[in-house]
Amino acid sequence: MADEPYRLTATQASAKIRAGELTVEEYACSLLSHIEERDPVVKAWEYLNPEQVIAQAKAMDAIPPEKRGPLHGVAIAVKDVIYTKDMPTQHGSPIYARDAPKVDAGSIIILRQAGALLLGKTTTTEFAATVQGPKTVNPHGTTRTPGGSSSGSGAAIADFQAPIGLGTQTGGSTIRPGSFNGIYALKPTWNSITREGQKIYSLILDTLGFFARSVEDLQLMADVFDLKDDEPPKDTFAVKGAKFALLKTMVWPQAGPGTKSAMAKAAELLKAHGAEVEEIEFDPELEELPQWHATVLHSDGRSAFLPDYRAAKDQLHEFLISHVDNTNKISRAEQLEAFDNIAIARPKVDKMLAKYDAVLVPSVVDEAPEGTSSTGSAAFNAPWTALHVPVVNIPGFKGPNGMPVGVSLVAPRYHDRHLLVVSKAVGEIFEAEGGWKSTL
Amino acid sequence: MADEPYRLTATQASAKIRAGELTVEEYACSLLSHIEERDPVVKAWEYLNPEQVIAQAKAMDAIPPEKRGPLHGVAIAVKDVIYTKDMPTQHGSPIYARDAPKVDAGSIIILRQAGALLLGKTTTTEFAATVQGPKTVNPHGTTRTPGGSSSGSGAAIADFQAPIGLGTQTGGSTIRPGSFNGIYALKPTWNSITREGQKIYSLILDTLGFFARSVEDLQLMADVFDLKDDEPPKDTFAVKGAKFALLKTMVWPQAGPGTKSAMAKAAELLKAHGAEVEEIEFDPELEELPQWHATVLHSDGRSAFLPDYRAAKDQLHEFLISHVDNTNKISRAEQLEAFDNIAIARPKVDKMLAKYDAVLVPSVVDEAPEGTSSTGSAAFNAPWTALHVPVVNIPGFKGPNGMPVGVSLVAPRYHDRHLLVVSKAVGEIFEAEGGWKSTL
Repeated sequence: MADEPYRLTATQASAKIRAGELTVEEYACSLLSHIEERDPVVKAWEYLNPEQVIAQAKAMDAIPPEKRGPLHGVAIAVKDVIYTKDMPTQHGSPIYARDAPKVDAGSIIILRQAGALLLGKTTTTEFAATVQGPKTVNPHGTTRTPGGSSSGSGAAIADFQAPIGLGTQTGGSTIRPGSFNGIYALKPTWNSITREGQKIYSLILDTLGFFARSVEDLQLMADVFDLKDDEPPKDTFAVKGAKFALLKTMVWPQAGPGTKSAMAKAAELLKAHGAEVEEIEFDPELEELPQWHATVLHSDGRSAFLPDYRAAKDQLHEFLISHVDNTNKISRAEQLEAFDNIAIARPKVDKMLAKYDAVLVPSVVDEAPEGTSSTGSAAFNAPWTALHVPVVNIPGFKGPNGMPVGVSLVAPRYHDRHLLVVSKAVGEIFEAEGGWKSTL
Repeated sequence: MADEPYRLTATQASAKIRAGELTVEEYACSLLSHIEERDPVVKAWEYLNPEQVIAQAKAMDAIPPEKRGPLHGVAIAVKDVIYTKDMPTQHGSPIYARDAPKVDAGSIIILRQAGALLLGKTTTTEFAATVQGPKTVNPHGTTRTPGGSSSGSGAAIADFQAPIGLGTQTGGSTIRPGSFNGIYALKPTWNSITREGQKIYSLILDTLGFFARSVEDLQLMADVFDLKDDEPPKDTFAVKGAKFALLKTMVWPQAGPGTKSAMAKAAELLKAHGAEVEEIEFDPELEELPQWHATVLHSDGRSAFLPDYRAAKDQLHEFLISHVDNTNKISRAEQLEAFDNIAIARPKVDKMLAKYDAVLVPSVVDEAPEGTSSTGSAAFNAPWTALHVPVVNIPGFKGPNGMPVGVSLVAPRYHDRHLLVVSKAVGEIFEAEGGWKSTL
């Protein structure tokens, strides 16, 4: 039903709860009954205990208004590589089946303090580190992958099972499911939010991120997590007269028809709305950025997965075993060269990005592919993850089979708040005129 | 008693256990009775349950020889910012008093798999992030600090209460207590060992390290944690004919008499044993390295401690509150400039260090100061922590009050195994002829 509470964005639900038009319990019941109906199809959850959610909601309703936090009653889906003290954390790994240490990740402490309602844990690929899909399907086309590794959070938010989802990204694990599921996704500047209590793959790459169905909701998260630019951005941004760049990147030959047409349409729409769009390229010396990312990833996985390798190698995905065994024979010299080259590139790329209000880049290779065994390619995300810059996926376009395709906006490091304001204005255009609309 | 098992190094204890000359239970009993005698003075432990240790030891003795790991029965003291699923992890913080989530850090999983006997948790400054001393005293002079933040591990290993201790270093938290307590300490290359399950202060700085009373024991740890250089080092290293550099660093004006004389004596001894010792300096463009380290530290603390700030600001040290409040008004631009400048420096410094077999640098400002309220200055450690290079503290010298003073050897990143072999040869000389010997 169009007016059911489960369809509200976080900002809308929060306003209704604050106004006394909706109790947290009513809101929780609406979400839970929608989840009950949809979960057999979408399979986004690794753990969800309705009684626990209702008890939490009732306790929240009992809190006097003056003691309520900024996220009072806002429902959150938590990727299952993030520790929650009252729910299992299983990392998508048989090694951690039913494991439930009583510890909250830093992000979860912040969310609880802000009054969020933690719904449950969403599926992930093993340790958020492989592309082998979990049970979850894409709600827009249930024979297709929702992407990964934040599969469950991406699918749940698209399917109105929660307004906000936590994801993580080491390659493309937040932006890719954002695009595949036709929702907004923010990968903030690296380390702007604590990753305490979040499974490690690569220290220099792993980044906590968010899924939502509106930019306002991403801004709500940015507020709660205290994301701050040096210059507070203006409240609104006019596309008319703005200056964008379009950067296809060195992996553009991998782009499929959905992404090609989305990028062309996106540039066309920005121009039609009075913006300037200049096509730019990475400096040729950054040509190997994707290889550097892969080298760092594999080397970092070598130390990250040694404990699980020692404890239960037989239950570890062969891709992760290959990291520990250093099957690719990456030398320390090569590892350091990749690590250092990326580090040297960061300020240079910041400078390039800073010339524009935002830079338009592909989010994915194409619409979500058929099948759920692979969560797809992170080719277009890995460079930006390595560069630490904030990225927002903006939905609105469609692929050859009518599945959603997003495009991303990027900005220099620690320009997250600016990027969100730009994304809001751009998102309104792309959602209205890009050609894809959610039928869920 | 000189022949009590508690006095053995890890390598010695391991050999005796393997030869059937010592059971793990006998070894544990010897350590526990020594701890019982000394703990009222040294106060190195935050948590230690003798019954639990004995039960663990008995279980180990029951393991058939062919199923025993490389660290079978080797006792380990664990700094209390590292999660252990069967002991509390309190982070030296009242916020986490009696907190005991059932989760093992990655390092602890590796140690358990190798057969180590985990004795208990050692004291730390709050979140390993302040210089406010815990209850622990320096066993060589009980009115003095053992250093920090790895206070308990440093003191316990010096005092023969355990052969191996786990420490962490973000500024100087491993090398400084190593020097203050007259023992060996290794801060390995950043990220060469997983930091999963270890409290975060700064992702790009925090490093797990080890304390021991011999270099062989550090090599044992390097084996277990799979530290590997590109080129396996020779088994032995000849000081005669070797090429060292001596680098006083830009913070040399802070050096006290103990460190000045230790550095002079160290260089003199190396020369007397036939080595070449060339004095070198950092490139002038690295003059601000200490400030860059401080800027990164404070900025990273801003996101790292936000959860605890939100949950229990009244129980958080004011230094950490100041990080979150950004009292120093560090802009994002300054933060990134510091982060990038350090990153750009790393390969350059590697290149400089690679010209020598190892480079001799100060470990500390001076011998351990009087009092336990402050754990001392990390001025001489912070640059090397930022640069990610391996550092070994070598004991052997003494300060004006007869307290131990160490000096450090450093090498390029991922030359940890080489550095250990060099440290072994150099340590034999410094221990024999440096002028300080432990009376414990």
